[in-house]
Amino acid sequence: MIVILKQNVSKEKLDAFVKHIKAQGPDIHFSEGVHTTILGLVGDTSRIDINLINQMDVVDSVRRISEPFKVVNRKFHPENSIITVDGKVRVGEKFAVIAGPCSVESEEQIIEVAERVKKAGATMLRGGAFKPRTSPYAFRGLKSDGIELLLEAKKVTGLPIVSELTSLANIDLFNDVDVIQVGARNMQNFDMLSELGKCDKPILLKRGLANTVQEWLMSAEYIAAGGNENIILCERGIRTFETATRNTLDLSCVPVLKEKTHLPVIVDPSHATGASRFVRPMSKAAVVSGADGLMIEVHNHPEKALCDGAQSVTPDQFDDIMKDVLRLCEIENR
Amino acid sequence: MIVILKQNVSKEKLDAFVKHIKAQGPDIHFSEGVHTTILGLVGDTSRIDINLINQMDVVDSVRRISEPFKVVNRKFHPENSIITVDGKVRVGEKFAVIAGPCSVESEEQIIEVAERVKKAGATMLRGGAFKPRTSPYAFRGLKSDGIELLLEAKKVTGLPIVSELTSLANIDLFNDVDVIQVGARNMQNFDMLSELGKCDKPILLKRGLANTVQEWLMSAEYIAAGGNENIILCERGIRTFETATRNTLDLSCVPVLKEKTHLPVIVDPSHATGASRFVRPMSKAAVVSGADGLMIEVHNHPEKALCDGAQSVTPDQFDDIMKDVLRLCEIENR
Amino acid sequence: MIVILKQNVSKEKLDAFVKHIKAQGPDIHFSEGVHTTILGLVGDTSRIDINLINQMDVVDSVRRISEPFKVVNRKFHPENSIITVDGKVRVGEKFAVIAGPCSVESEEQIIEVAERVKKAGATMLRGGAFKPRTSPYAFRGLKSDGIELLLEAKKVTGLPIVSELTSLANIDLFNDVDVIQVGARNMQNFDMLSELGKCDKPILLKRGLANTVQEWLMSAEYIAAGGNENIILCERGIRTFETATRNTLDLSCVPVLKEKTHLPVIVDPSHATGASRFVRPMSKAAVVSGADGLMIEVHNHPEKALCDGAQSVTPDQFDDIMKDVLRLCEIENR
Amino acid sequence: MIVILKQNVSKEKLDAFVKHIKAQGPDIHFSEGVHTTILGLVGDTSRIDINLINQMDVVDSVRRISEPFKVVNRKFHPENSIITVDGKVRVGEKFAVIAGPCSVESEEQIIEVAERVKKAGATMLRGGAFKPRTSPYAFRGLKSDGIELLLEAKKVTGLPIVSELTSLANIDLFNDVDVIQVGARNMQNFDMLSELGKCDKPILLKRGLANTVQEWLMSAEYIAAGGNENIILCERGIRTFETATRNTLDLSCVPVLKEKTHLPVIVDPSHATGASRFVRPMSKAAVVSGADGLMIEVHNHPEKALCDGAQSVTPDQFDDIMKDVLRLCEIENR
Repeated sequence: MIVILKQNVSKEKLDAFVKHIKAQGPDIHFSEGVHTTILGLVGDTSRIDINLINQMDVVDSVRRISEPFKVVNRKFHPENSIITVDGKVRVGEKFAVIAGPCSVESEEQIIEVAERVKKAGATMLRGGAFKPRTSPYAFRGLKSDGIELLLEAKKVTGLPIVSELTSLANIDLFNDVDVIQVGARNMQNFDMLSELGKCDKPILLKRGLANTVQEWLMSAEYIAAGGNENIILCERGIRTFETATRNTLDLSCVPVLKEKTHLPVIVDPSHATGASRFVRPMSKAAVVSGADGLMIEVHNHPEKALCDGAQSVTPDQFDDIMKDVLRLCEIENR
Repeated sequence: MIVILKQNVSKEKLDAFVKHIKAQGPDIHFSEGVHTTILGLVGDTSRIDINLINQMDVVDSVRRISEPFKVVNRKFHPENSIITVDGKVRVGEKFAVIAGPCSVESEEQIIEVAERVKKAGATMLRGGAFKPRTSPYAFRGLKSDGIELLLEAKKVTGLPIVSELTSLANIDLFNDVDVIQVGARNMQNFDMLSELGKCDKPILLKRGLANTVQEWLMSAEYIAAGGNENIILCERGIRTFETATRNTLDLSCVPVLKEKTHLPVIVDPSHATGASRFVRPMSKAAVVSGADGLMIEVHNHPEKALCDGAQSVTPDQFDDIMKDVLRLCEIENR
Repeated sequence: MIVILKQNVSKEKLDAFVKHIKAQGPDIHFSEGVHTTILGLVGDTSRIDINLINQMDVVDSVRRISEPFKVVNRKFHPENSIITVDGKVRVGEKFAVIAGPCSVESEEQIIEVAERVKKAGATMLRGGAFKPRTSPYAFRGLKSDGIELLLEAKKVTGLPIVSELTSLANIDLFNDVDVIQVGARNMQNFDMLSELGKCDKPILLKRGLANTVQEWLMSAEYIAAGGNENIILCERGIRTFETATRNTLDLSCVPVLKEKTHLPVIVDPSHATGASRFVRPMSKAAVVSGADGLMIEVHNHPEKALCDGAQSVTPDQFDDIMKDVLRLCEIENR
Repeated sequence: MIVILKQNVSKEKLDAFVKHIKAQGPDIHFSEGVHTTILGLVGDTSRIDINLINQMDVVDSVRRISEPFKVVNRKFHPENSIITVDGKVRVGEKFAVIAGPCSVESEEQIIEVAERVKKAGATMLRGGAFKPRTSPYAFRGLKSDGIELLLEAKKVTGLPIVSELTSLANIDLFNDVDVIQVGARNMQNFDMLSELGKCDKPILLKRGLANTVQEWLMSAEYIAAGGNENIILCERGIRTFETATRNTLDLSCVPVLKEKTHLPVIVDPSHATGASRFVRPMSKAAVVSGADGLMIEVHNHPEKALCDGAQSVTPDQFDDIMKDVLRLCEIENR
């Protein structure tokens, strides 16, 4: 962090400022020029609130050089993190594919889908039991029954399960869920993030609808700062002016994240595009862009799906997608 | 809602479709043409999930004509709603001004600010006790002590108090808070919205960072559908590509909302612009655009504020803003 | 501009770098620390290409402190600029109202509209002769005949005329036009801007659909750098995710611009909102936000307008808007 | 196009409306219901201005069913178009790679880069002679000398050349240029598009900074409607709130375009990401997403480039990218 002081700051005020900064950790490096004094704050500045510095009366302006996140920063942890799920799936090491319906609807549905996606090569099963819906009149999930059905499907197929938590009030129901998903709308639900930092379960942290990569990493830092570093990031499209797709898949965030953090990154082409026919090309693109995995919505009867049918592929379509994905993984040594 | 059927749909399938729709409430009006059959769904279609209709096999395409919200829709409630706070402030009837610091920091601070803003003409006091912060290392509020200090300031000044709820886990602490604020990041926290629909306390619902007016009204509908129609909407700027201001104040949403809903709408120029020097012109603009009130951050020592000091005005600056605001209110008969 | 050097730069390379910078004008101020050397580039850095500096091999990073525009910068020209149109209208001194149809369609239309808007208090007449249209099949204006009709209307009413130039190929037709409008889609047509810098006619420079305030001022700088400082800026809404209005009026850009530049700023609520019923509240908001004028689309028969009828107000509606606008101007001493 | 009439429209007015529509081409199909009459406009509605219809007094609302572009619409031209450049490169048939510097700077530079990219497998050479620059003080290209140097490089390597036209005033200089590029900022320069519709040279039409896919295709329609169907579309990133990359690459527009149009689509990862280290993963992603080619900035000394050095790869890096690209093309049978 570089602080440019105002001109003619009194020694008294400057000393007070220096003391204030050092109390927070960083050391200070002075560069005194003829007209300007510039301070370089050296060390861990992630805990410094740049806005507070900026409004102090000795300060002309301040610029952050290093990023405001630390535990999830690749700079301090150069090796890729590998997140182990249910003792067997190692996300970040081998390409991971999470597949399943938007929402769990019935035993028949979830078992059939689970068996089909496993056969095609998926490594985890997804399914929503609690669904965040824009309208209060839409189907909002089977709730605890949905979790039960997922566990049933896990028993049958052996696939670890991933499901979204929409409220801390329900967290006890997720004891046997293998990966807790934090949805886009909760990416900045800081109370939820803090609480999840206290457990050691893998967290799938989706990117918020209109959040920058830096804000996303700050949310990961919330979980990690609490002690839980088992975090998988998931790009699911951002909101832009374009309406030809449901959201705009920001695929270039994959190499950006690979540079900034050691956490694994997966891509959800279903929510990003909102259309089942675009899932295949975007899944392939995700593999070669360097992503660590995919999250794909699969439904045995998309036309009857209670939620997001338009973006769900059938098990047959998923078979085709997986053929392409696995072939590209092979070529890319993933 | 208008449904265009595919060509050559069998009578059997059509009958099943019609039965399916009617079971959800609306009546159907047929327009059979030479090549196309168009169905008009008449009546309350707010509970119809347009995506589910769209993916049904007899359907070519579907367009929504009426809006998917009902309780908050002006069409079904042409008169303006007036929200009474603490038995005395009537939002929607008389121009309301909510003022106070971003976060409650000390007794001295909140009492001084409360007294100053009251004297200048504010009708409610704001103050954050629980603060959502992007960084886990930033100040997150005095929590229950903050609520206590707000109640203390209410006792001294008589001003009703407004404070943000960030997690349902703390809701019991808000029993004596007059208006519960739902922040931008929780606008689509549907579990929170549903829960707030069960109480009868006034809710200040801020617009999400990147949410459309329609999504915002759907979130209001969540609260209203639960039985609580005491909702005040608050525009606080949206996220765009522009960085000269912290967010982009979407002031034209005021007349848009006045057309679509009967709920009162206030404007927060502090968060929208992120800079105290832009609060005055935007406050004035809000008055004449037809807004029902303002929410302004005021701090007695902005340069020492633990949060959002850059956008907080001083009590003296607030005096000047209020002079302008009150003069415009008089001219506009508000 | 602050340049942070890489560590251990050889004296030779540093000397070459310093020579390179000084050759472009600025002086250099050294701040040598233990680990880092920071250079402050003092003086006029508007001609320095920050990207070129950034990629040089001695440079670790570079930050711009001052803005990259100079002639239009308020810092170097603290007084408001006043742009005189046709020897009588002084934009920036007295509130200016430009009104008229989106496109000139007939003598009857333009004369009737011109007479009505003049009577209501407009100070200039607008009318499109060359229309940029998204579809190649839409009406694209009466071209030179449209200019003739505008001149005819000027003769009748005395109102100076404003019309949009869409191609330098037609510039000779604009000899008698009082203000040349550069439309949103041409805001970064740098060849056009450079050419307009060579004349001394007032230029109305609309903000691009998705351009930042800084880019807009850089486009003004293009015109000004060529020698023509008769520039009026016009905010007309930006593109965002919101679709309830045609564009999103960024009204807070008015005080932002007032701080950054000495040029006058007017607001076009017709294009910004795209709906005639929102023109009145946004016109009022523009006045009190500090804008120097308005540009409003008026058509005698909006339902038959060949272009943008939905956003055009009738002469009667314009009368009402002007009553409000003039009353607010009086209160604001404008 | 579906028109919903207002209730109780007189027969007289309806007849006039029907006559008005039929005069523009489409036939009308009536669906009369109890309360509503719906008209289906059948046939070519691309020339109908939906806004004009919407504001007519008999009309309640109107919805477009088919797209407003025709010549470039895949519906009317199901086969992929193949654009032949310089009699040998067939874009749309075989994967095309356009490579070269942002701007032509010297004979040594352009010849060296041309030879290197040819050797690596590029099929066309790019180079800017006229550069649109945000600042009037930045390098704006060698102009006619730049074109001369490109032709020289073509003579040496045989590679067809691609260069950007920034003003119709210079079009004669482009007689020997093989592909005329229309830059992002000119995507809606309708005068330029119309003019280019009159020649038969291949046009590379870049997507505008903040333009939708539909607007982009309407711009292609401008060129095609004039008679020139030799159009190559180029995605180069769109403007969003994210700043980690220069723009946001909208890669899902590739399958969207493949559905809507028969024109070939290429991707420019250099401008989209703005950082040379992200060009490789995004180039690979473009291949497997179904793009017909790439446009990549290559400079022999990026650190000295007069323009966009940060996003230019070196010839050695380009060699590596091409190895990956060609391997993926082989697997994908492109």
